[in-house]
Amino acid sequence: MIQTRGYAAQDAVTPLGPFNFARRAVGAHDVLIDILYCGVCHSDLHQARNEWGGSIYPMVPGHEIVGRISQVGDQVTKFKVGDIGGVGCFVDSCRTCHSCQEGLEQYCEVHNVGTYNSYERDGKTPTYGGYSSQIVVDEKYTLKVAPDQDLSRIAPLLCAGITTYSPLRKWQVGQGHKLGVVGLGGLGHMGVKLGASMGAEVTVLSTSPNKEADARALGAHKFIVTRDEAQLKEHRNYFDFILDTVSAPHNLDMYLSLLRRDGTMILVGAPPEPAPVSGFSLISRRKRLVGSMIGGIPETQEMLDYCAQHSILSDVEVIPINQINEAYERMLRSDVKYRFVIDMASL
Amino acid sequence: MIQTRGYAAQDAVTPLGPFNFARRAVGAHDVLIDILYCGVCHSDLHQARNEWGGSIYPMVPGHEIVGRISQVGDQVTKFKVGDIGGVGCFVDSCRTCHSCQEGLEQYCEVHNVGTYNSYERDGKTPTYGGYSSQIVVDEKYTLKVAPDQDLSRIAPLLCAGITTYSPLRKWQVGQGHKLGVVGLGGLGHMGVKLGASMGAEVTVLSTSPNKEADARALGAHKFIVTRDEAQLKEHRNYFDFILDTVSAPHNLDMYLSLLRRDGTMILVGAPPEPAPVSGFSLISRRKRLVGSMIGGIPETQEMLDYCAQHSILSDVEVIPINQINEAYERMLRSDVKYRFVIDMASL
Repeated sequence: MIQTRGYAAQDAVTPLGPFNFARRAVGAHDVLIDILYCGVCHSDLHQARNEWGGSIYPMVPGHEIVGRISQVGDQVTKFKVGDIGGVGCFVDSCRTCHSCQEGLEQYCEVHNVGTYNSYERDGKTPTYGGYSSQIVVDEKYTLKVAPDQDLSRIAPLLCAGITTYSPLRKWQVGQGHKLGVVGLGGLGHMGVKLGASMGAEVTVLSTSPNKEADARALGAHKFIVTRDEAQLKEHRNYFDFILDTVSAPHNLDMYLSLLRRDGTMILVGAPPEPAPVSGFSLISRRKRLVGSMIGGIPETQEMLDYCAQHSILSDVEVIPINQINEAYERMLRSDVKYRFVIDMASL
Repeated sequence: MIQTRGYAAQDAVTPLGPFNFARRAVGAHDVLIDILYCGVCHSDLHQARNEWGGSIYPMVPGHEIVGRISQVGDQVTKFKVGDIGGVGCFVDSCRTCHSCQEGLEQYCEVHNVGTYNSYERDGKTPTYGGYSSQIVVDEKYTLKVAPDQDLSRIAPLLCAGITTYSPLRKWQVGQGHKLGVVGLGGLGHMGVKLGASMGAEVTVLSTSPNKEADARALGAHKFIVTRDEAQLKEHRNYFDFILDTVSAPHNLDMYLSLLRRDGTMILVGAPPEPAPVSGFSLISRRKRLVGSMIGGIPETQEMLDYCAQHSILSDVEVIPINQINEAYERMLRSDVKYRFVIDMASL
């Protein structure tokens, strides 16, 4: 067993604090990763505070992990000691269902093993995430990360990056398309960068006019203040795609009205409560409301390679781990550009 | 002008009664149709009673029209006197927008002229529908109907038929697909017939177990009682497509749970009130909730030809026009298999 240091939530209300625990020994197909950086996803907070229900404590959050491989199992072929590895939202799956066979392990029909707040395939060993010194992961569920990059800015790609990349690819967003991005947080800012890199005209849709300069700096071509009825009216039936990254309750019908015929609104940030949708919003111009959840291992690798090739990085604020509770509070106020990333050297 | 007899609603609360009015003279591109049959669509009732707001009175409902061409304009090439013509939900559109150019006139971005409860392109001349002796329509918006068919059973194809045919084609439903049909009314029974004819395994999803025999008689392969939790559980993640024809409020999330990954739920019956949809329902298996509205002229012609070729007809109960108010009441009780059709000889 490998003694590991981390930060954990002991229950839904106590701030996170230091927590020591054991990782499994490195198996034949495993790699041991000395974690360098771990991004802070809004879902870490949701789960640490049991806002989705069913949280498993103690919980070591973190699923945007980048680190250096320090040990490899006998059968490992993909990595050698010293390589950089990444781990995203899951660390295993059934490997045999249709979804797993198609490389869509995130939709595993049997058991997708979350990187934390989940159980291993044995159904009883809890998984602990990346707010920790080390992690042991099957090489199959570990991504290759090119070195010579700012690794703190790579970490958020493992969740925020793939969550936005996957639907943009699935729906073949690109040249000639008008893409709206709702929410300029961890996911949204990646949506802007990725959408623009793929050739789409990107518009940030925001309730707050003071985000315009930031949106344009990220690569957005246009900016719409959604509280301005005149701007909304002017952009009715305008967008081919809207990427909705907001997980707070919001008015879906208003955004649907901005889609053109056959337009697609993609939900990647799930509000906790069901949101009312008018059938007429979808029927009257044959619109689509679709969901997408992170991405599979092959596509996550493709995304990392794509971002390396196009010099796409997340915009981050690096923090020491003892500021994690403050970071959660700031995240709730959207006071971060655009992702907190923990420097694990601070542990 | 052409003196025409019909049945009209004079306001939202008075039963329909006889109404005489004038049609325009037959223009160069027009045909005059002596109406033989007109189907009774649930939307006739919604609009006659102003349940969607904005109704124009007096209102002559009816947009499932089949009749014999009795006069043609100088420039008409598609029809000759004696041919059978059909008219669906609209009788004109702008003809120049992208949607019109693509033959998707139902989504005309300028002005789709409804067959009734609408205004002509002049914005002021009210249109009157098929509960009438005759109608004058531009040949471009008139469908060719093969004679030697039971024309009373063709009429509902002009709305119920195309409304279900269009999304099944758009989403390429066919061999190897599992299709669920929600609601066994005018639209739903056509969805069952058309889906089965295209090679899909068709399952009727109904709240009422006593519809099973009827569903199977229409061609359904399976039947699920949606009040039976065990059956629902057994069919989680089962369907590739669900065609939802219900316009009363209902639980969309429950049906979404029956879709498999990448499955598509198609709304064609719009409930008057927005329905709550959980983002997780769509995100967790990358599902899609989409809308579809009737069909364009080219696809409506394709559908009529397809139905003629495959001997697909609507199941109807033919009524004299003086029973229209009673038919509305029975329709509200779902007491019709599956479409009332008015025999216009009764006028």
